[in-house]
Amino acid sequence: MSDRREFRDLAEPAEAHEAIASLDLAPEPETVPLREARGRVLAERIDAELDVPGFDRASMDGYAVRARDTFGADEVDPATLELVGAVHAGAEPDVTVEPGTCAEISTGAVMPDGADAVVMVERTSEVVDEDGDVDAVEIRTSVAPGDHVMFAGADIAAGGRALGPGTEITPREIGLLSALGVDEVPVRGTPTVGIVSTGDELVRPGGDLHSERGQIYDVNSYTIAAGVEEAGGEAVLYPHAGDDYDEMERLLVEASEECDLVLSSGSTSASAVDVIYRVIEERGDLLLHGVSVKPGKPMLVGRLTDSAYVGLPGYPVSALTIFRTFVAPAVREAAGKPEPRTATVTGRMAVEERYSEGRMRLMPAGLVESGPTGPAGAGGTGGPGDAETLVYPVDKGSGATTSLVEADGVVVVDPDTEYLAAGESVEVQLFSPDVRAPTLFAVGEDDPALSRLLDRVDRPRHLALGSREGLRRLRDGVPDAAVVAGEPGREPVAAPDPTADDEPVPAEMIGEWTREWGLIVPAGNPDDVTGLADLVDRDLRFVNRDSNAGLRTTLANALAELADERGTTRREVTEAIEGFDRAVRSHESPARRVLAGDADAGLGLRATAERLETGFVQLGTEPVRVHANPARVDKPGVARLREAIADGDDVFDALAGYER
Amino acid sequence: MSDRREFRDLAEPAEAHEAIASLDLAPEPETVPLREARGRVLAERIDAELDVPGFDRASMDGYAVRARDTFGADEVDPATLELVGAVHAGAEPDVTVEPGTCAEISTGAVMPDGADAVVMVERTSEVVDEDGDVDAVEIRTSVAPGDHVMFAGADIAAGGRALGPGTEITPREIGLLSALGVDEVPVRGTPTVGIVSTGDELVRPGGDLHSERGQIYDVNSYTIAAGVEEAGGEAVLYPHAGDDYDEMERLLVEASEECDLVLSSGSTSASAVDVIYRVIEERGDLLLHGVSVKPGKPMLVGRLTDSAYVGLPGYPVSALTIFRTFVAPAVREAAGKPEPRTATVTGRMAVEERYSEGRMRLMPAGLVESGPTGPAGAGGTGGPGDAETLVYPVDKGSGATTSLVEADGVVVVDPDTEYLAAGESVEVQLFSPDVRAPTLFAVGEDDPALSRLLDRVDRPRHLALGSREGLRRLRDGVPDAAVVAGEPGREPVAAPDPTADDEPVPAEMIGEWTREWGLIVPAGNPDDVTGLADLVDRDLRFVNRDSNAGLRTTLANALAELADERGTTRREVTEAIEGFDRAVRSHESPARRVLAGDADAGLGLRATAERLETGFVQLGTEPVRVHANPARVDKPGVARLREAIADGDDVFDALAGYER
Repeated sequence: MSDRREFRDLAEPAEAHEAIASLDLAPEPETVPLREARGRVLAERIDAELDVPGFDRASMDGYAVRARDTFGADEVDPATLELVGAVHAGAEPDVTVEPGTCAEISTGAVMPDGADAVVMVERTSEVVDEDGDVDAVEIRTSVAPGDHVMFAGADIAAGGRALGPGTEITPREIGLLSALGVDEVPVRGTPTVGIVSTGDELVRPGGDLHSERGQIYDVNSYTIAAGVEEAGGEAVLYPHAGDDYDEMERLLVEASEECDLVLSSGSTSASAVDVIYRVIEERGDLLLHGVSVKPGKPMLVGRLTDSAYVGLPGYPVSALTIFRTFVAPAVREAAGKPEPRTATVTGRMAVEERYSEGRMRLMPAGLVESGPTGPAGAGGTGGPGDAETLVYPVDKGSGATTSLVEADGVVVVDPDTEYLAAGESVEVQLFSPDVRAPTLFAVGEDDPALSRLLDRVDRPRHLALGSREGLRRLRDGVPDAAVVAGEPGREPVAAPDPTADDEPVPAEMIGEWTREWGLIVPAGNPDDVTGLADLVDRDLRFVNRDSNAGLRTTLANALAELADERGTTRREVTEAIEGFDRAVRSHESPARRVLAGDADAGLGLRATAERLETGFVQLGTEPVRVHANPARVDKPGVARLREAIADGDDVFDALAGYER
Repeated sequence: MSDRREFRDLAEPAEAHEAIASLDLAPEPETVPLREARGRVLAERIDAELDVPGFDRASMDGYAVRARDTFGADEVDPATLELVGAVHAGAEPDVTVEPGTCAEISTGAVMPDGADAVVMVERTSEVVDEDGDVDAVEIRTSVAPGDHVMFAGADIAAGGRALGPGTEITPREIGLLSALGVDEVPVRGTPTVGIVSTGDELVRPGGDLHSERGQIYDVNSYTIAAGVEEAGGEAVLYPHAGDDYDEMERLLVEASEECDLVLSSGSTSASAVDVIYRVIEERGDLLLHGVSVKPGKPMLVGRLTDSAYVGLPGYPVSALTIFRTFVAPAVREAAGKPEPRTATVTGRMAVEERYSEGRMRLMPAGLVESGPTGPAGAGGTGGPGDAETLVYPVDKGSGATTSLVEADGVVVVDPDTEYLAAGESVEVQLFSPDVRAPTLFAVGEDDPALSRLLDRVDRPRHLALGSREGLRRLRDGVPDAAVVAGEPGREPVAAPDPTADDEPVPAEMIGEWTREWGLIVPAGNPDDVTGLADLVDRDLRFVNRDSNAGLRTTLANALAELADERGTTRREVTEAIEGFDRAVRSHESPARRVLAGDADAGLGLRATAERLETGFVQLGTEPVRVHANPARVDKPGVARLREAIADGDDVFDALAGYER
């Protein structure tokens, strides 16, 4: 396989762009009904084939006259013209306006022969004869030829250039095409993009998942398909080939024959990669293997039978990032669509970020709108004009799918960049043009009441990283608020003494409630657990929360008290608990372990026990407090959360063990 | 009809917004397959129903080990562990890692029992036994428990908040929902908007048009339907009712029973309005009739059986403006969609605009990106940062459909505003979020070569208002370029003397060509026309271009010469031509009149005669010159047009009578 060796050197990102650009994805133009043309792009120029309007047209309700008959007429000395008939919109005139006569006319109607102007009805009076019929009209103004008449072709004349090739069709182009009577529109074809999913471990969403066999849901197929559609392409999903390599080859070839571009996202299985290589080598042309970019090094670019081929990395954030950076522009180009105006946002780095590798880095980043940062702004005088966009790196580690919604886009970092300083201006390429900064960015404790309260805030973001991490990040000035459970030792305060060592985090508390915590046990409490002493003294399998959780600190404090009572150390107590170090991540996770029979008791909330119908041994109540960045208490999302907490009685009443 | 009288006073725009907001358009939530969920809005919160990943997962290719076995290992002093098996992604482990052993593992595979960390393959070496089999592995680094392992639930744990209600679904949300295995998504319903077209004169695009009866194509139905879809609604077009009022009533009631909102756009026929009134009065509730806004005064808001109803004005620009301002926000709200970020653009007024009426004005406006305006900028030092958006009023008169594409949006002008000064900052509400300023804005002569050259420029705008108007506007500094045919008397120059009276327009010529002009006559020249003298001396019906056309000035100059030769005045000559004042708008219009038998000769170009296969009597050649605003010659669209002209031999060769 000497061919493969040629690609050992990583290509520069610009070469990857060029390689993809060299693969022509543009399909043949097609014709679509006007009704379905919105969002498409004109394939050719459209000239007017007819005059619009097609006739001299009254543009007011009134009377069609010969302008000369009105010369000198005014309120004092009106001209009286004989009324000879009426013309309505959509009807052919059956009158001729001779000198000294006029005809009633409605807006949009054809000007009758002889008439060259319209007098608007407001400047006329009907003259009634002895039988009560209107037989003449007083004209109280003079008009010039052409007044209130739109001449044939005045809007656009036959032969005139209406729309150019490459025009994206929005409602207004649909309007002009309608006026021209065009009901079939020649448009750029929609590039079809086949998505072939490889990897033995992948199951399509909705299918049965066998975690014990290491199966995971296939994230990339639907995600990339949605990205293709957003870029103006049509995505075709091919059935999952599983581990049948003949089938995989068959699907790749089928996709390449049916589509303008085939995408696969990196299987972690070496044999799958071999199949792709072999098919490309036998039936196509490998242009590029490996790009000097992180993430995305293993990107492949080539041709496969009649089609273009790009292999994306396997991890979802990497796959979407590489798709967004390298492939989406080519799909848009093929569809004739311009890059969306909102594809990028400029902001300032909220924190410093360092780089060590000599590869271009596509750094996943989140956005947060800062409120006014000075004390004046905090006093409420700062308007939205004072806010700026802060950008923070999101790095949950490879393979995290939640990064997809916790990051808003990527910052392209040059290979030579060693660090981005806090405050440095950077450009974020958004994952989708519709992405916006959340209205509220909170970090901290995972809490079921909070989750429900956040439902009442428009586009919030809460990273459930635990109370400690919430406070740490609030101190760094990145999030709008920290959610803190239990007593962290050093409460944030509104006006800390800046000269003090290790001063508390400056914050304004915008809401507070309490929750009952204790031990989750199987329904009916079969082991008859009564309290913490049972965990220490008996042979019970326990499951704890992770060390960032405020709830774990509350437990640790309670164990310290128990140790005091017993005249021993906390360490001795915790070491006696089987599973004290078995830490799981969400407030429900310990309960689910108990339900699954993997543990006899777990740390949790009464609310969780009720929801999952387990037993519960109450050990205490702890406060949950939301501390806001003092400079951002007037930010709409923060204000909304404060309001939601204040008005949240229904939430607290519905959750067992909660009180405000 | 006393009810109607109540609405004589026009409502304030804010009342119209409130009235529409009070009509609840939101349909019931529904469930859609994940694959089709892009662009929809979540109706409820989605919590994780499972741990992601569902198992402890290797995040590197390498060896699963007990971390304790690697303590102290490094390049110099590796640890050697017995190889007991392998685990691949998508397979259930069939090995247990006992102390002193390891198992090969691939990225994404389930961690085997006993192992608590992964050593990446790059830091290991296989140990081959005497039979050539690999039976052990040298580990050249030490790892801590959890290294290169993603624990079950580390991405998101069961019970965790995944996405909140109101979240718009982009590819990244599709990614997270995929990871959670969610394949049916609860989303906000799509509001259905019925569009009932009234007006006897309207014909659907594609139908046969009888201009002599005053028919025009129905512009509003498709335009508003596209606007509805852009706002997140589903448009339902009802068949055109024509002048059958029973049918119109039946359709209105049917639409109101089937849709969340019914829109009609103003029929000009009084009896149609009566039908709408009657149906609303009998079957609904009229909330508002007439709003103090221009255009749009006759807007109706009410309820009709089960549905909301809004009556839009009839003229397309008015209808789209009122839809965009009052109705689209309500449709978006019902669909749960936020206002697009790109819905507005801020710019400066290019010219002064005065207002006299005490109504809120929705002024159609066009956008043009100015280049750097000072001489320094003109020298090329100004970057794109120097450009700003200029806003100019577009007022082609009511009923012009070309305004749809010649305006980009509307400026809301307060009723109290008497004028907007040139340079004043204004906000333009774009007709569609996808609208952008054209890359090139030219005004001037209508020319078939220009039309083809513009095909090579991305998103150009050319207003074919004639050479004179092009020069006038270029002098005002609004367009990027003027297209001038013939000899306007006073050529624009690159560096005019600013102290001179009536100084020429400052401009840089970016291209020039010539075109043959003359008389278009029927094929075969049946009247044996040989020149201008025939028009003067014989009984021929002539058709001229409008007075802004440079071609007409060229004709006038030739007639002046003829008058000189005859020792008479030009006026005497022109008065002798039947139809000299019959002015039509496009370069093809006179030829089409000749073809239709309405004239014996028309002013036109050889290229037009060839295209339409008419006869042609050559009278001369005239230059066509493109003069650019000197401050904007580096603007990409201007540079592109200059290049297109320079490279345009194929265009000039293909058009009869053209030379560069």
